[in-house]
Amino acid sequence: MKSVMLYDTTLRDGTQAEDISFLVSDKIRIAQKLDELGVHYIEGGWPGSNPKDIAFFQEIKNVRLSQAKIAAFGSTRRAKTTPEQDNNIQTLLQAAPDVVTIFGKTWDFHVHEALRISLEENLELIYDSLAYLKQNVGEVIYDAEHFFDGYKANPEYALKTLLTAQQAGVDCIVLCDTNGGTLPHELPEIIKAVQAQIQTPLGIHAHNDSECAVANSLMAVACGAVHVQGTLNGFGERCGNANLCSVIPALKLKMNCDGVSDEQLRSLRLVSRHVYELANLVPNKHQPYVGNSAFAHKGGVHVSAIQRHPETYEHIRPEQVGNATRVLVSDLSGRANILAKAEQFNINLDSKDPLTLEILEQIKELENQGYQFEGAEASFELLMRKALGNLRNFFSVIGFRVIDTKQKEGDKPLSEATVKIKVGGRIEHTAAEGEGPVNALDNALRKALEHFYPQLREMRLYDYKVRVLPAGKGTASVTRVLIESGDGLNRWGTVGVSDNIIDASYHALTDAFQYKLNKDMA
Amino acid sequence: MKSVMLYDTTLRDGTQAEDISFLVSDKIRIAQKLDELGVHYIEGGWPGSNPKDIAFFQEIKNVRLSQAKIAAFGSTRRAKTTPEQDNNIQTLLQAAPDVVTIFGKTWDFHVHEALRISLEENLELIYDSLAYLKQNVGEVIYDAEHFFDGYKANPEYALKTLLTAQQAGVDCIVLCDTNGGTLPHELPEIIKAVQAQIQTPLGIHAHNDSECAVANSLMAVACGAVHVQGTLNGFGERCGNANLCSVIPALKLKMNCDGVSDEQLRSLRLVSRHVYELANLVPNKHQPYVGNSAFAHKGGVHVSAIQRHPETYEHIRPEQVGNATRVLVSDLSGRANILAKAEQFNINLDSKDPLTLEILEQIKELENQGYQFEGAEASFELLMRKALGNLRNFFSVIGFRVIDTKQKEGDKPLSEATVKIKVGGRIEHTAAEGEGPVNALDNALRKALEHFYPQLREMRLYDYKVRVLPAGKGTASVTRVLIESGDGLNRWGTVGVSDNIIDASYHALTDAFQYKLNKDMA
Repeated sequence: MKSVMLYDTTLRDGTQAEDISFLVSDKIRIAQKLDELGVHYIEGGWPGSNPKDIAFFQEIKNVRLSQAKIAAFGSTRRAKTTPEQDNNIQTLLQAAPDVVTIFGKTWDFHVHEALRISLEENLELIYDSLAYLKQNVGEVIYDAEHFFDGYKANPEYALKTLLTAQQAGVDCIVLCDTNGGTLPHELPEIIKAVQAQIQTPLGIHAHNDSECAVANSLMAVACGAVHVQGTLNGFGERCGNANLCSVIPALKLKMNCDGVSDEQLRSLRLVSRHVYELANLVPNKHQPYVGNSAFAHKGGVHVSAIQRHPETYEHIRPEQVGNATRVLVSDLSGRANILAKAEQFNINLDSKDPLTLEILEQIKELENQGYQFEGAEASFELLMRKALGNLRNFFSVIGFRVIDTKQKEGDKPLSEATVKIKVGGRIEHTAAEGEGPVNALDNALRKALEHFYPQLREMRLYDYKVRVLPAGKGTASVTRVLIESGDGLNRWGTVGVSDNIIDASYHALTDAFQYKLNKDMA
Repeated sequence: MKSVMLYDTTLRDGTQAEDISFLVSDKIRIAQKLDELGVHYIEGGWPGSNPKDIAFFQEIKNVRLSQAKIAAFGSTRRAKTTPEQDNNIQTLLQAAPDVVTIFGKTWDFHVHEALRISLEENLELIYDSLAYLKQNVGEVIYDAEHFFDGYKANPEYALKTLLTAQQAGVDCIVLCDTNGGTLPHELPEIIKAVQAQIQTPLGIHAHNDSECAVANSLMAVACGAVHVQGTLNGFGERCGNANLCSVIPALKLKMNCDGVSDEQLRSLRLVSRHVYELANLVPNKHQPYVGNSAFAHKGGVHVSAIQRHPETYEHIRPEQVGNATRVLVSDLSGRANILAKAEQFNINLDSKDPLTLEILEQIKELENQGYQFEGAEASFELLMRKALGNLRNFFSVIGFRVIDTKQKEGDKPLSEATVKIKVGGRIEHTAAEGEGPVNALDNALRKALEHFYPQLREMRLYDYKVRVLPAGKGTASVTRVLIESGDGLNRWGTVGVSDNIIDASYHALTDAFQYKLNKDMA
């Protein structure tokens, strides 16, 4: 079994992504998750570039990590100064990390055009900076920026920069595909040429501009690299960095490399989700290994095969990474999918029952309108129970009115809702305010219903998602609202669709209440 | 220069994705786009599996395509029948495509467990089906399902299935990584073993479950494959198929393979967007080559380098695939970004001007509140002009009221808005209805403003996006609204943020009107 070090740069390179910005407290939480996951190095930031990163290095010292080393990132010294006088390098030392990683120029073009110094001076920058850091910090890693482009342009000089780093005594030399333009079949030959001259352990740092970052990372390991840099969920500038959520399971399950434990690997999906949440991003459904769809089966043929032998259409067991097989319901579904869903909800349904086909037809029709039942399985269950005639209707809404009023310039509008509902023969007519019209309607409905069903007080709304489906299909645009509710014991998702956002929200809200009442009382 | 055939299966394998469902008319439009893009084969569907696919093969005959061949997909005949009597195979012939592609079993485990027949019988299925089709159709392609898994389990049998297909006279044998579990470094040895026995041209069909579909496709071409199957944007079941939007530019720009022309390559981004739109999916910002962020630069260091020499941080010229370099504005931005933006808007801004720093501070503050200016550059320009004191305020909104009323059970709510605006010293107080509260407010604002500025009639709202930013950051959840407007000449995006969706929409709407008026009249 081969040993490979995992080096995470979510907190530094990951924050270069267009849509990502972490608070210091977010960064601390992510570092803890990375440590639990079993990552060996956590690059916390570039202390020389912004105050947020300096704060991270201070605060992380108060956090007990079980194994991960904290790395600070920076660049080689500037020209015409010494490491002792270079601000950037001194700030790295002040951050007092376990490890320092600095990058230097490998590509002659960059030396001339970006640094505007001679090739010889650049070698001095590399040597001075690394030798000085190695005297002051326990472990020093060298990121050879643009290594592959540099090697293709001027292999002799590119190798000379690596030799310089080796002479300075660094612990690891990382070959960076900074622009992400390298393809996997190019790696074996280039890495072999490096290994002919360099004995220092090699690492790989890949970007995804050619959609090959994970592949290049794994290829480098197959060629002998022992250190892989990447980010959770592949976050990073432009097209992102090598996605550690795909690198980690491939190394462990497919390439016989140790690293994280079985238990740590099982936490992979949760860690991935956690980071999406802190980044305020919607998880990529189709993400390999950890995405909601990664082991989701829609085609009828696949579904019946998978129920007998999961390995027929699954490359690994989803449980190994904390994921699960899912059977989808959609207009491509066969009866097998509907039956699998029914079983999940403890509903007795026969494959020969004409109701199965009727439900299938109804789903097709609703999907045409813009409904989507993935993530709204409570609405799906209500629909099934209704078709089977075993849904109890606990209330009906006679009418409502929602009013948003902005009274004068600069004011924020106030939202108020009135509702009239009927339970049994009794009518309740009431009103409530809220933060925005949907919240006001939710508050008013709750107030009216709690009168009859006090257990609704246990229930709260966890998530509210709005998707405006693009127009251009001939009809006006349609709004789909997905709501996630919970009551401490369970969580459930409901959906509503309408060209009016209030109406769509109303349908998703009332489904959520009906589901709770059916669950507890029917 | 090497010749590689591009085989698109967006219309068949792509529709297996969890969130994709195309109308027949969508499929026809996509086929036209694929033909214009220069794809050689378009797999239209599996006529034996559903009526929608049969309709496609009928309708596509009325469409003039410039070069692409239409392929129909199916499976080998069932056991204990003949091709003449097999429904699936006869339906393929009835569809009358240019090419037929059928898949057969390569993996002994699948033969035993899914087909439940002997290994010998499976070879007969393959031979009979292919030989029969070859007599009846001009071109026949064989998809060796689960080839790589099958080869690893039983190389001798896997190769025997390919030899059988070759004996039946097929035009191309496609090695399928059906479960997507294969890694690129495994390919060279396996493909070499195939080439030792098979002279028929080889193809590759990769899935993305290991995040290596594009890499595996390119690696197979590097090893000698001459036919690549994939889908636009990588749509497909689970984690998707090999993404042709990444395969096509890599083959042409990096691997010296012909295929699409320079002009066709420049349409890549538009084709990608078009298909996202028809699929009702939000494009992946970070998608290689064609995504909005693929050539977007946020870090200050990168921005100043890229302005001198784009190749310093770009692996190809974005124009080659119809994309463009973008400079982002965010809290990591240096002054260089702000200055680049100002230049884009023809605003005179000096790097030493303290206003530059002031704008930077203001952006940081707004981003903290949930604002995002990517995609809302009109709001950003208004903000900059306001800071510079050269924004003209064409109107102010004194107040508004939006009412949604549902009168009785089963009714859809009606939305009505009243607004009071001031232009110069004059006040306009009016009302309008709409489809939902935001549309009603938009209609009422327009009605009031058009009274003073008739040119607003040229303007329409193209897109309306709502994002509920997840709570859990300590504060209540916040709604961000992005609006895209246009007037025939230009399109522009505006943004509004509030805990009230009506308020957020109000801000984005009034920014859109102010931008139009400043653009035309200031």
